[in-house]
Amino acid sequence: MSVKELDSLDKIVSLAKARGFIFQSSDIYGGLGAVYDYGPLGVELKRNIRDNWWKAMTQKYENIVGVDAAIFMHPDVWKASGHVEGFNDPMIDDKQSKKRYRADMLIEGEIAKLRSNEKFEEADELQQMLDTAGSREGLCEDLHKIIMENEIRAPESGAFDWTEVRQFNLMFKTQFGATSSGSGEEDAVYLRPETAQGIFVNFKNVMDTSRQQIPFGIAQVGKAFRNEVVARQFVFRMREFEQMEMQYFVEPGTDAEQYDRWLEERIAWHKELGIRESKLRTHPHPEDKLAHYAAAAADIQYEYPIGWQEVEGIHNRTDFDLTQHAEHSGKKLEFYDQQQQKRYTPYVIETSVGLDRTVLMVLCDAYREEEVDGDTRTVLKLNPEIAPTKVGIFPLIKKDKLQDLAHKITADLREDYNVLYDESGSIGKRYRRQDEAGTPFCITVDFDGVESEGEDTVTIRYRDDMTQDRVPVSRIKEVLSEKMKSWKP
Amino acid sequence: MSVKELDSLDKIVSLAKARGFIFQSSDIYGGLGAVYDYGPLGVELKRNIRDNWWKAMTQKYENIVGVDAAIFMHPDVWKASGHVEGFNDPMIDDKQSKKRYRADMLIEGEIAKLRSNEKFEEADELQQMLDTAGSREGLCEDLHKIIMENEIRAPESGAFDWTEVRQFNLMFKTQFGATSSGSGEEDAVYLRPETAQGIFVNFKNVMDTSRQQIPFGIAQVGKAFRNEVVARQFVFRMREFEQMEMQYFVEPGTDAEQYDRWLEERIAWHKELGIRESKLRTHPHPEDKLAHYAAAAADIQYEYPIGWQEVEGIHNRTDFDLTQHAEHSGKKLEFYDQQQQKRYTPYVIETSVGLDRTVLMVLCDAYREEEVDGDTRTVLKLNPEIAPTKVGIFPLIKKDKLQDLAHKITADLREDYNVLYDESGSIGKRYRRQDEAGTPFCITVDFDGVESEGEDTVTIRYRDDMTQDRVPVSRIKEVLSEKMKSWKP
Repeated sequence: MSVKELDSLDKIVSLAKARGFIFQSSDIYGGLGAVYDYGPLGVELKRNIRDNWWKAMTQKYENIVGVDAAIFMHPDVWKASGHVEGFNDPMIDDKQSKKRYRADMLIEGEIAKLRSNEKFEEADELQQMLDTAGSREGLCEDLHKIIMENEIRAPESGAFDWTEVRQFNLMFKTQFGATSSGSGEEDAVYLRPETAQGIFVNFKNVMDTSRQQIPFGIAQVGKAFRNEVVARQFVFRMREFEQMEMQYFVEPGTDAEQYDRWLEERIAWHKELGIRESKLRTHPHPEDKLAHYAAAAADIQYEYPIGWQEVEGIHNRTDFDLTQHAEHSGKKLEFYDQQQQKRYTPYVIETSVGLDRTVLMVLCDAYREEEVDGDTRTVLKLNPEIAPTKVGIFPLIKKDKLQDLAHKITADLREDYNVLYDESGSIGKRYRRQDEAGTPFCITVDFDGVESEGEDTVTIRYRDDMTQDRVPVSRIKEVLSEKMKSWKP
Repeated sequence: MSVKELDSLDKIVSLAKARGFIFQSSDIYGGLGAVYDYGPLGVELKRNIRDNWWKAMTQKYENIVGVDAAIFMHPDVWKASGHVEGFNDPMIDDKQSKKRYRADMLIEGEIAKLRSNEKFEEADELQQMLDTAGSREGLCEDLHKIIMENEIRAPESGAFDWTEVRQFNLMFKTQFGATSSGSGEEDAVYLRPETAQGIFVNFKNVMDTSRQQIPFGIAQVGKAFRNEVVARQFVFRMREFEQMEMQYFVEPGTDAEQYDRWLEERIAWHKELGIRESKLRTHPHPEDKLAHYAAAAADIQYEYPIGWQEVEGIHNRTDFDLTQHAEHSGKKLEFYDQQQQKRYTPYVIETSVGLDRTVLMVLCDAYREEEVDGDTRTVLKLNPEIAPTKVGIFPLIKKDKLQDLAHKITADLREDYNVLYDESGSIGKRYRRQDEAGTPFCITVDFDGVESEGEDTVTIRYRDDMTQDRVPVSRIKEVLSEKMKSWKP
């Protein structure tokens, strides 16, 4: 059988829309840039992944607890974290088209163009200029100079009519209406650009109420928002997205070891989710590229159709965050170790995975086109544990006898699983629909099963290899449960 | 035994903070008005309630599917829904203190004051003025006149120095940074003030992809945001809150019957959650108080310590929303009934419950103070199904033999439940801690159990009546599962 893997993101975008996994936000109004809605299948897939992560990261560990901090936080949080001052992208506007570009990406685009035109020397030269552009202080001037000197034109309009390069803060800002001044900066509240700070700010309250000792972790799942000017690549980079984070507080000196440990544990999680090992890799950040708060950092990358990209980040954030918040809030954010009789500010090992990116990874990894009897079947070979619908239940044809038993089985399985009763179209078509939805099991009720002697039987058809078993009705749950547990990617 | 129920909201606020259910947001920075964070116990309680609702409202029904729409929506959505124009509160500012008040609530406060001073005639008179104040058009002028004529003073400052009454929109607004103009109204994006519109806007996509026929429902859980100026009463009225909504699309003419049906089904859900029947009631809205889009509406109310208040709303929204979105988007939002060969815009029956209000209701309803041996125990008699921690596991004292078995039981139960191992303090103290956390079962490992002949045994202690059973280790899961199922409020 000829099997084809996913070769472009477009195929996932189409399937996601056609089958109700993911729609453009406000689709009937023409959409909203870089914002997406999850449809009936998507919401179940996302929920299953989220629940899997939560169980794996809290219930499994004695010393990890959860929190759910609000999206709105006190504005000083973002001063302490450095986001008000430093969470910027260098932007430049094309005066003719009024379109805005990220200056560094504009230059990178030019380099790529040069290379594809085999002007390697010029490309290398430009790359070097970009690499040696100033740190945040002089960056805007340096990037502007590079764009000017190399006469880089706007990709869409072709114009060479640029504004200055300016830092553009990526946080969304809104106003709390509690005072009558109304529009002052003092009322500005941001939508959190990351969920991590909600954990750090709750460190003390959690310590005080949950009787945890260092080391311990705090886990959180929630929305974050970034005003990405260049947002694209479907749900990979969105303005509104969901993070699953666990911040692990450790004694300084044990941080390197804990960093290694969590990197390992997190890769193991992705594999247990059913992602093929060959499509996963770790990508350590070189020391000179580390964020200002980090002593070590690595991405867990997946090979999307758009290339190897980060799905999760593991960081040794040191005591940067707690120290900053202690300073800005005036509260002590330390741990007193009674056995060692010493007080210290814990280091933090961060594990931060994008939920939407995980959904996209899972869809990409499961996608196959298979030639079957001269026809192509599109199938999502999802881990049954996270599949949106677990079982499709079909009466072979619309006859009372078959429909009644099919309904009975549906009602019975519905207690435990998301199931779907479907009686319309040929059995082959019904199988194909469930293949595209990633449904691992289909149960067909036919006359052979209900008219033979003894107990009624049905066929269970397996999505991955399309084989079938005939099974007595009383054994359905047992067979499904066994097959779910033994599934391999 | 003397048992006391909850008599003030303050007790829940204190318990919630002390035990890690709910903290003020950004607590170390002095908090953020009307925003709260869920701590380790709170996040589990909230998750359990959310999951319970989701299963009850989607998995249980063949014809209800879920969606998860983004918080950001196209700005035209809020024009169509009427929120840009009409989602306002009439506000007035005290020029001296710069404090802002809702004009109608200011008058209501004055009425209450008159009544408590036994000036019933004046109170009735003022109430009548308030009742006959103009509709939205003339409302601001009328309220201002009432405040002026009755010389109502600012409650805090005592001043009589008011601004005009102005309409104040409750939607939070932010800017999308996709164009270089930057600050124009055309980039304004709102944080959704209700989740319902995310369902209506996805009606067509869900219809097209999920093969549903009218009647069918779409369920959603998500955050919504309102710039409440007078926000208070803990998590009852917050600026950021979570809604659980199911919008049920029906054929016009069947709407009254479906409205009655859902009102009944939703009350049943609250009872199944473990809320005492005597604390629940329905409160139908009189016809002259209905929202402009509604043909019928009722609250499901719970008797909080602050009085009977809405926890859920059931509305017959007619075809208002779909008609508005069809008009504003230019897309047909209709259903073609093949059997009847007719096309129509469905009516919508809305069920909308506040998740945070449900958490608060559950906490209030479960709270008891009991006199036990001259001491007071505070206990949360939560439905075990939604209790944050299901089982506490305690070795009687710190001896290897007891600790080892307790750890083994912990590891074993952890697969299925959220459990807590605790070896510090007296057994009595450990029980009390779990009583306050609402943990339904505590398992104690003692020498009687591990040193007797035959299989090891433990005691299981039940939170509600504090009785204990001695149980062989191999039967623990069975006993817990039975007790969970048979629980009654």
